[in-house]
Amino acid sequence: MGLRKLETCFSPALYEADQHSGSIVVIIDILRASSAICTAFANGASSIIPVAEVHEAKEYKKRGYLVAAERDGYVLDFADFGNSPFNFTSEKVAGKSIIYSTTNGTGIIKLASAAGAIVIGSFLNISALTDWIIKQDKDVVLFCAGWKNRFNLEDSVCAGAMAERLLESGNYETICDSTLAAVDLWGLAKGDLPGYIEKAAQRSRLRSKGLDDCINFCLTADFTNKIPVIKEGLLVNNIS
Amino acid sequence: MGLRKLETCFSPALYEADQHSGSIVVIIDILRASSAICTAFANGASSIIPVAEVHEAKEYKKRGYLVAAERDGYVLDFADFGNSPFNFTSEKVAGKSIIYSTTNGTGIIKLASAAGAIVIGSFLNISALTDWIIKQDKDVVLFCAGWKNRFNLEDSVCAGAMAERLLESGNYETICDSTLAAVDLWGLAKGDLPGYIEKAAQRSRLRSKGLDDCINFCLTADFTNKIPVIKEGLLVNNIS
Repeated sequence: MGLRKLETCFSPALYEADQHSGSIVVIIDILRASSAICTAFANGASSIIPVAEVHEAKEYKKRGYLVAAERDGYVLDFADFGNSPFNFTSEKVAGKSIIYSTTNGTGIIKLASAAGAIVIGSFLNISALTDWIIKQDKDVVLFCAGWKNRFNLEDSVCAGAMAERLLESGNYETICDSTLAAVDLWGLAKGDLPGYIEKAAQRSRLRSKGLDDCINFCLTADFTNKIPVIKEGLLVNNIS
Repeated sequence: MGLRKLETCFSPALYEADQHSGSIVVIIDILRASSAICTAFANGASSIIPVAEVHEAKEYKKRGYLVAAERDGYVLDFADFGNSPFNFTSEKVAGKSIIYSTTNGTGIIKLASAAGAIVIGSFLNISALTDWIIKQDKDVVLFCAGWKNRFNLEDSVCAGAMAERLLESGNYETICDSTLAAVDLWGLAKGDLPGYIEKAAQRSRLRSKGLDDCINFCLTADFTNKIPVIKEGLLVNNIS
């Protein structure tokens, strides 16, 4: 079996959908969408329905769904809750389907919809996710959500942590400078991840809005072994 | 005087032209366009006329101009020379105007044309360039050419070297994660820059084409104090 290709994409504006039709695409938006989604499944959510537009989320709310919806960190007024992983408690989400619309995350899922598989990655599920990926024998794209199409540190560092594990498995090769840079940034960050992320722009944005209580949680490895995956437009826990 | 903003853009696909109308934009394409341009001025070229399209370059050739033109590293058949800094010797270029068309560089100059000023940066002119920038009291964008819209290591590391100098001057602030990442990558690279760039994809591409003889030269600081700048569509040496 030959080596599989590993690539990293630092922003939706850099994603080349036509290049990755057979790949596993890992969506990484750790502050906070991908961490929140992993937490929801850890706490028993049965599915998450990602919607890009606010009016769609509102429509679902009228039909009785639980709705998580935020823009720029703020909970939309009609929604049940926002984007913090701490919202998705088992009391609220166990056994439920949740509508979910965020600034970055849900639009990206649509962008990647031509991929062979789309999974949600974060530090919270990093070991389960990378172990599963290694078994699939497919090319992989680590797709950082970034912020408004810009590069961000936290998603890049998480991509670097995943890339390091995949490359160390011996099953992947990379000729992608983004992957090499991500691994190097992870190397600088891993000794004190919260300390490194302290300088990230999103860290400051969340602090200024009083939304930074969940950051250390989002930087915690292996809170769950759930692997959220897109199946027929829904996010469900991957049991393959 | 307040602090000026410093930003870094890792790819033309991430450049936000409308955000930077008053800024100095530094175009960085060190393997090899921006290094070749700095070398041409160091060796006495009077101006460089950047053209994006091959047919334009061909038209100038018919009119008797010296033409440097390459695509993917290869010299175009009608051109006098290609993209290696070693082509631009004083015997060939002193006192001359040169037409120049490259895979990445010239298209990017057009993309940035709404900026307050466009200058060409490389390791070869890093001290003269950053000293000049610091005197201008303007916002700065370090614009990495990348490769076919992708992030690349060599331009990012050079941006990091420039950003470190600008930030250390005390005249700049940054809330740009790309700048922070570039500075960190430069921190990893600077102890052995040729060794670090060894893993870059462009390093391998140039080697496979036998075009890597100039790489160590392109990684050399302060070969020249020339600062190529766009004036009325031409690249000239900045004497302001």
